Amino acid sequence: MSTPQHHIHLSESEMPTTWYNVIADLPAPPPPPLHPGTMEPVGPDDLAPLFPMALIEQEVSTQRYIDIPGEVLDVYRLWRPSPLFRATRLEQALGTPARIYYKYEGVSPAGSHKPNTSVPQAYYNHAEGVTRLTTETGAGQWGSALAFATAQYGMECEIWMVAASYRQKPYRRTMMQVWGATVHSSPSNATEYGRALLADHVDHPGSLGIAISEAVAACVADPNARYALGSVLNHVLLHQTIIGEEALLQLAKVGDVPDVIVGCTGGGSNFGGLAFPFLREKLAGKMNPTIRCVEPAACPTLTKGEYRYDFGDTAGMTPLMKMHTLGHDFIPEPIHAGGLRYHGMSPLVSHIYELGLAEAIAIPQRECFAGALTFARTEGIVPAPEPTHAIAATIREALACKETGEEKVILTALCGHGHLDLASYEKYLAGDMVDYDLPDEVIAKAMANVPVIA
Amino acid sequence: MSTPQHHIHLSESEMPTTWYNVIADLPAPPPPPLHPGTMEPVGPDDLAPLFPMALIEQEVSTQRYIDIPGEVLDVYRLWRPSPLFRATRLEQALGTPARIYYKYEGVSPAGSHKPNTSVPQAYYNHAEGVTRLTTETGAGQWGSALAFATAQYGMECEIWMVAASYRQKPYRRTMMQVWGATVHSSPSNATEYGRALLADHVDHPGSLGIAISEAVAACVADPNARYALGSVLNHVLLHQTIIGEEALLQLAKVGDVPDVIVGCTGGGSNFGGLAFPFLREKLAGKMNPTIRCVEPAACPTLTKGEYRYDFGDTAGMTPLMKMHTLGHDFIPEPIHAGGLRYHGMSPLVSHIYELGLAEAIAIPQRECFAGALTFARTEGIVPAPEPTHAIAATIREALACKETGEEKVILTALCGHGHLDLASYEKYLAGDMVDYDLPDEVIAKAMANVPVIA
Repeated sequence: MSTPQHHIHLSESEMPTTWYNVIADLPAPPPPPLHPGTMEPVGPDDLAPLFPMALIEQEVSTQRYIDIPGEVLDVYRLWRPSPLFRATRLEQALGTPARIYYKYEGVSPAGSHKPNTSVPQAYYNHAEGVTRLTTETGAGQWGSALAFATAQYGMECEIWMVAASYRQKPYRRTMMQVWGATVHSSPSNATEYGRALLADHVDHPGSLGIAISEAVAACVADPNARYALGSVLNHVLLHQTIIGEEALLQLAKVGDVPDVIVGCTGGGSNFGGLAFPFLREKLAGKMNPTIRCVEPAACPTLTKGEYRYDFGDTAGMTPLMKMHTLGHDFIPEPIHAGGLRYHGMSPLVSHIYELGLAEAIAIPQRECFAGALTFARTEGIVPAPEPTHAIAATIREALACKETGEEKVILTALCGHGHLDLASYEKYLAGDMVDYDLPDEVIAKAMANVPVIA
Repeated sequence: MSTPQHHIHLSESEMPTTWYNVIADLPAPPPPPLHPGTMEPVGPDDLAPLFPMALIEQEVSTQRYIDIPGEVLDVYRLWRPSPLFRATRLEQALGTPARIYYKYEGVSPAGSHKPNTSVPQAYYNHAEGVTRLTTETGAGQWGSALAFATAQYGMECEIWMVAASYRQKPYRRTMMQVWGATVHSSPSNATEYGRALLADHVDHPGSLGIAISEAVAACVADPNARYALGSVLNHVLLHQTIIGEEALLQLAKVGDVPDVIVGCTGGGSNFGGLAFPFLREKLAGKMNPTIRCVEPAACPTLTKGEYRYDFGDTAGMTPLMKMHTLGHDFIPEPIHAGGLRYHGMSPLVSHIYELGLAEAIAIPQRECFAGALTFARTEGIVPAPEPTHAIAATIREALACKETGEEKVILTALCGHGHLDLASYEKYLAGDMVDYDLPDEVIAKAMANVPVIA
């Protein structure tokens, strides 16, 4: 038997030149964000101090396809089209008749899918004369992506990094600095709000909510600055659809159509980016994949959250968004997939879930890391903690196929590598990882089926 | 003007299926390694306790092409063919008429070119019934590569990591463990030699020489074990030629022929892998590139070393090899490019240098890191400390072309990413990096020409 092609390649000339706006094809539009004071829909003027007009327009657009500017395509081509890989060696280790494909976004300079949106965000700001972007970052994935993007357009980038991460993850900070960004430990002395917090508590560990407040305050104080957000919003998910558009073309090259699509969900941008182009094909009756969100058991937004209006941040400063939420004051346990520790879910993904167009499961983190070891020992790549959830769900599905004998085609997204997250693997390998509030027998049962590659 | 293609892709079906043995085409063979006791050439029997017969045969082979086994090609395809990138954005930042191409080996699971040889080494051992490989590692690049490779063939892997690195670089260690390897801090309690050293000095920092001794001792004590080496030897350079063979095919696709080839040299395997296939073409009169080795100013093996027989290790346990050497007791200053801190140079690269087929330059590390920042801010990728030397040499050449107006084609190898080396960038950015024994004015002059991308 000849080995199936591992890398299903798309050439630069085949790279999609439009993003896909799923709103154009949904049976109903998602509910609008509301101003918390008036409870009226938020308008462009409310957002103008924070975002450039091009992105505000994309946020509310109902146009099906939006052209990717040439200056963005030029930067995308540093790593795009990204590879689609057939996981033959994983399939063999699992003994499954399923065919497993993973779209790998870890080839981007920042190592995740985030540059798919940081690059156009930097570009549109640059095109409108903005010279400086501010943002917050937790574990550092988003900050890295924005630092890389702003370097490409000669812009300044100022990042507030949660103090606890700033101390624990010096290498992510250094990576941002390599690309020329200024990184503050948040709370910082650079904003009034930060100074007030530090006055009370000099060793303040910070939080994402505080970091957002500082980045927004610094943006508002400088007319040449705007603010950038790495997930949740419609325009972010729009930019990420290049993942799914490419994967569609790549699967077509090998004549496969997905039966199951699984993606990990934190704010929802990686999942939406992968799934929405396939959802379009599904709504058009051209294929009928099961589309599944995978979330961490410690932050089960879709599977246990409520669908209601809530704030996007902890402090309650953002517009109200209709979304699945655990409550804006919910603090997830400190699981290692920092990018999935968000109390809410993208309004667009929440809406699609409510429409019954996607399903969701939650997986405990030890099962995820067990799956990640199996993956690394067969396919080679060490995944970031976030996509270990997608891998664990893929392994569950592939093992179900082994039971039934079904030759399903499973598609997932490996949205980043784990080169800067090895501390989490160290903890797992040492047996020190815990799953919060989950009984041992649940964990034991969850892990029993994950094959261990010695 | 349309942007030139960034990624010159080679499909899996176009991947070379043979390695190239440059010895077949040289005007004289390299001098053989000698047994230090008898001063007679070392024979297969001397090496059999350490290496499988297939690798011993490759070490002394004069055959021009050697087939890559199918089981090796299957693993290579997890990341190969590796991309050849045109550095258009770097060219623009430098304002050079030169065309710069870089072959990127950081896409391998271990993040460097090392798996090109760790995979066949694991395979040939496995094929001869060996169940366990032992090796040493300094900074961890080679250990990671061997851990990944042994996982692919279900073998045990035992690695002695220099104690100082073991303590300072826990993430490299974790990466090896993710792939299932056992990692010892060296000196270790696992060998008699290690126990003796620890008895004298419980906090012994270790050295590469000591780690080699322990790995060899553990190998010799177990008839099912063999030892693996990541550079220097002929068979290692042979396996690395897939880099240059692919690059030849890729440049042909865009109709370019290199005028200058630059590669960083530590043990010589990355350089040899890139350059030897082009040297074949040069010797055949088909092209006439300048072939240039780039070494660190702190370990100038080719530019300041002697060409003579010397030991490969510090303790004097290996056969004597005719090579450029700074003396086997030379301890290079602790520059950040750990992979270039070797007192000697591959006998094959040394021989080719003596034949006048390659030239060499030495560059101080601060110029290398300055070039690496320019590279990261234009091409995106954060390079490992070792290939920053190749980048700095490329920038020198490109700026010379700017002076003369020559449209030279420059080819280099970016042999690994720097995701696990960010501490060195942190030091550079903080202004704490030093160049040993080099006057400040030399450094200032060296760095004056490297463009700073703000």
